[in-house]
Amino acid sequence: MRMTGTGIGQAVAVGPVARMPEPLATPADVRSTIGVDAEKARAVESLGRVARALEDRGAKAGGTARDVLEAQAMMAEDPTLSDSIDELLGQGKTAERAVSEAFAAFRDQLAAMGGYLGERAADLDDVAQRVIADLLGVPAPGVPELDEPFVLVARDLAPADTALLDLDKVLALVTSDGGPTSHTAILAREKSIVAVVGVLDALSLADGETVVVDAAAGSVVSEPSDDEIAAARARIADRAALVDAPATPGALADGTAIPLLANLGSSKAAQAAADQGAEGVGLFRTEFLFLDAGGSAPTIDEQRAHYVELLEAFPGKKVVVRLLDAGADKPLEFLNDAHEENPALGLRGLRALRVSEDILREQLTALAEADKVTSADLWVMAPMVSTVEETTYFVSLAKELGLKTVGVMVEVPSIALLADRVMAEADFASIGTNDLTQYTLAADRLLGSVASFQDPWHPAVLRLVGEVGAAGARAGKPVGICGEAAADPLLAVVLVGLGATTLSMSPSALADVRASLSRYTLDEARRFAETALAASGAAEARAAVTAAVESPKETHS
Amino acid sequence: MRMTGTGIGQAVAVGPVARMPEPLATPADVRSTIGVDAEKARAVESLGRVARALEDRGAKAGGTARDVLEAQAMMAEDPTLSDSIDELLGQGKTAERAVSEAFAAFRDQLAAMGGYLGERAADLDDVAQRVIADLLGVPAPGVPELDEPFVLVARDLAPADTALLDLDKVLALVTSDGGPTSHTAILAREKSIVAVVGVLDALSLADGETVVVDAAAGSVVSEPSDDEIAAARARIADRAALVDAPATPGALADGTAIPLLANLGSSKAAQAAADQGAEGVGLFRTEFLFLDAGGSAPTIDEQRAHYVELLEAFPGKKVVVRLLDAGADKPLEFLNDAHEENPALGLRGLRALRVSEDILREQLTALAEADKVTSADLWVMAPMVSTVEETTYFVSLAKELGLKTVGVMVEVPSIALLADRVMAEADFASIGTNDLTQYTLAADRLLGSVASFQDPWHPAVLRLVGEVGAAGARAGKPVGICGEAAADPLLAVVLVGLGATTLSMSPSALADVRASLSRYTLDEARRFAETALAASGAAEARAAVTAAVESPKETHS
Repeated sequence: MRMTGTGIGQAVAVGPVARMPEPLATPADVRSTIGVDAEKARAVESLGRVARALEDRGAKAGGTARDVLEAQAMMAEDPTLSDSIDELLGQGKTAERAVSEAFAAFRDQLAAMGGYLGERAADLDDVAQRVIADLLGVPAPGVPELDEPFVLVARDLAPADTALLDLDKVLALVTSDGGPTSHTAILAREKSIVAVVGVLDALSLADGETVVVDAAAGSVVSEPSDDEIAAARARIADRAALVDAPATPGALADGTAIPLLANLGSSKAAQAAADQGAEGVGLFRTEFLFLDAGGSAPTIDEQRAHYVELLEAFPGKKVVVRLLDAGADKPLEFLNDAHEENPALGLRGLRALRVSEDILREQLTALAEADKVTSADLWVMAPMVSTVEETTYFVSLAKELGLKTVGVMVEVPSIALLADRVMAEADFASIGTNDLTQYTLAADRLLGSVASFQDPWHPAVLRLVGEVGAAGARAGKPVGICGEAAADPLLAVVLVGLGATTLSMSPSALADVRASLSRYTLDEARRFAETALAASGAAEARAAVTAAVESPKETHS
Repeated sequence: MRMTGTGIGQAVAVGPVARMPEPLATPADVRSTIGVDAEKARAVESLGRVARALEDRGAKAGGTARDVLEAQAMMAEDPTLSDSIDELLGQGKTAERAVSEAFAAFRDQLAAMGGYLGERAADLDDVAQRVIADLLGVPAPGVPELDEPFVLVARDLAPADTALLDLDKVLALVTSDGGPTSHTAILAREKSIVAVVGVLDALSLADGETVVVDAAAGSVVSEPSDDEIAAARARIADRAALVDAPATPGALADGTAIPLLANLGSSKAAQAAADQGAEGVGLFRTEFLFLDAGGSAPTIDEQRAHYVELLEAFPGKKVVVRLLDAGADKPLEFLNDAHEENPALGLRGLRALRVSEDILREQLTALAEADKVTSADLWVMAPMVSTVEETTYFVSLAKELGLKTVGVMVEVPSIALLADRVMAEADFASIGTNDLTQYTLAADRLLGSVASFQDPWHPAVLRLVGEVGAAGARAGKPVGICGEAAADPLLAVVLVGLGATTLSMSPSALADVRASLSRYTLDEARRFAETALAASGAAEARAAVTAAVESPKETHS
């Protein structure tokens, strides 16, 4: 049987299913038979044990997983929760029931807050489950522990589950819930794990049965034929060879150079990206510097040190740094802490920086200083630019403060529609396809109920990309792509056909995109772009280009 | 001296300034000298007196003003507030102070909720001021009462202030705060009062001095010269003649017909619109039917009765009805009560109706039934359409249910960018310039901090209008405009130059737009459109067209 969902990445995997244990049932509201004091002692011990276990797992996992697990450990010992559990125990409830009720009440409060805090509700559920399992003396829900590698099938994965995923053991992730922006999907992208999410029937798969998980096709095949298994194994071998091959510079079949760059969120990942063949950095996000700095902006000196570390990993290469991109939906209270009804349409990106121009000036100054003492080719760009006037403002200010190459992100339809006038002012443009798709289709890219609109193959989005590409070509200025779209090997070819001169992506996507570009000439890429633009929707565009690619393929491969 | 702000409408007024009294100072936190019981009696009496006064004013005002004032009267006697005042009085505070503190605390809670409730905070402040004034025995803050007509100058106006505005007395409104979507601006538009809002220095105007308030220019001139006053009076006389002239059908100077239609929010206003010369209805909003129905959707019978009343006011004329346009930001819990981070980008309009298809089918059925028994030319259209696939879905469903002419709103950039494919499916398109501007510039149209982006003169928005206009012309199908943009007499000419075949607006704007269209030929309108499209921003576009209009004006006027 073939089930479908949203594939993350391009790889394929074959192996036996291991089901994630289902969550525990809510403990019954029965009267304790052992008395209040004994229940209190049980609760305190269990909460402590679970907190210690989470801390241990965090220490073992390291990195951001540690932060998440330590936060969960703190939830287990939160004094407010503890008071609330005590109160419920005082009413004669069992420890299991009191823990369940207290966590559920706190969880509902968090969920009602929405946004970042609302998303933490799932973490709290996870902690509650662990404590109740401990009280019941049953195994904690979590990743199954098997000797052989397996395909993990779950409803969805909590951070605590995924933190300890052993890449050697987990061949693929399949979830019934969750979309392309779920925690599972983000993790799969980050760690290059084969994944298909949102497979409605996933929970019908049984422990031990063999499945083929194909991220490129977004499919999960149960009871595969021998031929299907052999085809999958051949693809796995091809792909391993591809990833192990020495990374050559990105180029089309006719030799047209298309530099392949990395999207990075911290300077710590810079060296690894260079090792994976990134020819530079196409999008360096600077939010982490400001989030980590607590309640105020980091100083020029602190920022400069980070930028120097980044630039030193790419001597002589291009590094594009995006200025702080925050708004009312991100917790940077020194920038914009207003309540906004629609923060995605609010005072964010360059709009917010312009209001707090001191922060903007300091960041530009720190970047200019780091540029002076390093040999990378530093480019800077502003996020959320929507008018020509803003472009002029940002380019003048950055140049006044010593930056040499200054551009803008294209994320808002208006700036793409006026691309000629923008390219007259800016040195380059970089298209953020995620936000550009969100605004062009007017559909929140993080909202599940409108997720079907978030597809960069939509011809309206591609038209805007093409307008910016054409304007860049007329002005003789580069146009990069730095959204998820660039990591789709087939769409990457279309984007080049629309005029993109560089592509930037998660480092794990570089090998596939490099291989895909090498198969087609610029003329072919342009023809594919025409085909996509002529379609009436995203699905039609993808299907039409796939058909166009497959028909004359023999002449290229 | 000439001060500037955002003008509402096109008219001009001359008269003496009357300043709105400044709000009362916060009562000092001193100990009561008359004792708790005496203070309690004072508080109870004042709250009751203010509540009665608000009810009386409401009964006198009628309409929506009555609802607002009755809601304020209820606030004055809210039992939670009353308990909280009692508690503060018990601490020995004065009635003035206790009222001030209790209302302020409640106000902060409301404001923190944001959205609709947050906006009610100002109403609560207004009630508190009235009660404190009553306790102090000073006149309640409010509209000044003068014998002669005057220009009202205020920081901003609360609903209670404006409810009783006597049109014969108030020549114009000037505010220092508030933007084009403030309560003052909405009221001025609705009641056709000359207004300039957001005039930073407005509070420097002194009681009694003569000013010229020019909404078209967005200016307030203090100490005007005799010539300036004479010019203004001449314009006032011209405009009176214009409004009194028999309403002819909308047409350009070369005879090209451009039907001028009305935007209506309820069938009660239909007859008045017809009397003001509306040649039909270009946008009939149906939300009121659903808001008034309480917790569930109105029945087919209830809806049909309203639609029949509407259609009967326009026998033989075109009436365009927009299907229910709601989402998570509007209180229709039967449609979408999910918490959404960005409701403007959420499950709204057709997206939400498609999920609750029974509501959509019932509304279409009621419209088809009303159409059968009336003689108006009924057109229906869906809000918030963003793909060709959605267009096909809506058009098929509406036709299946018996509607004859079915189209889509163009509010989302993607639908404008694929206008050719949309016009192949739909019978007509109607451009909602307010939302189209909001999404194209990615700036919330109700958020003050990004209000400067909300300008339909922006060339990116005009390009999209032009693409829809051109696609309509190629397909031989009509393209209407039903946003605020159509009510701007100069922009209306540009929109026609971009291909709009009808314009729909608040009935009060019809006379000005009719006069403006009659001055230019279609060739001229197209030339103005080219001029606007070539500009780099909204202000530049407006200035360039204004200059183009003024230079060859003599040959037309």
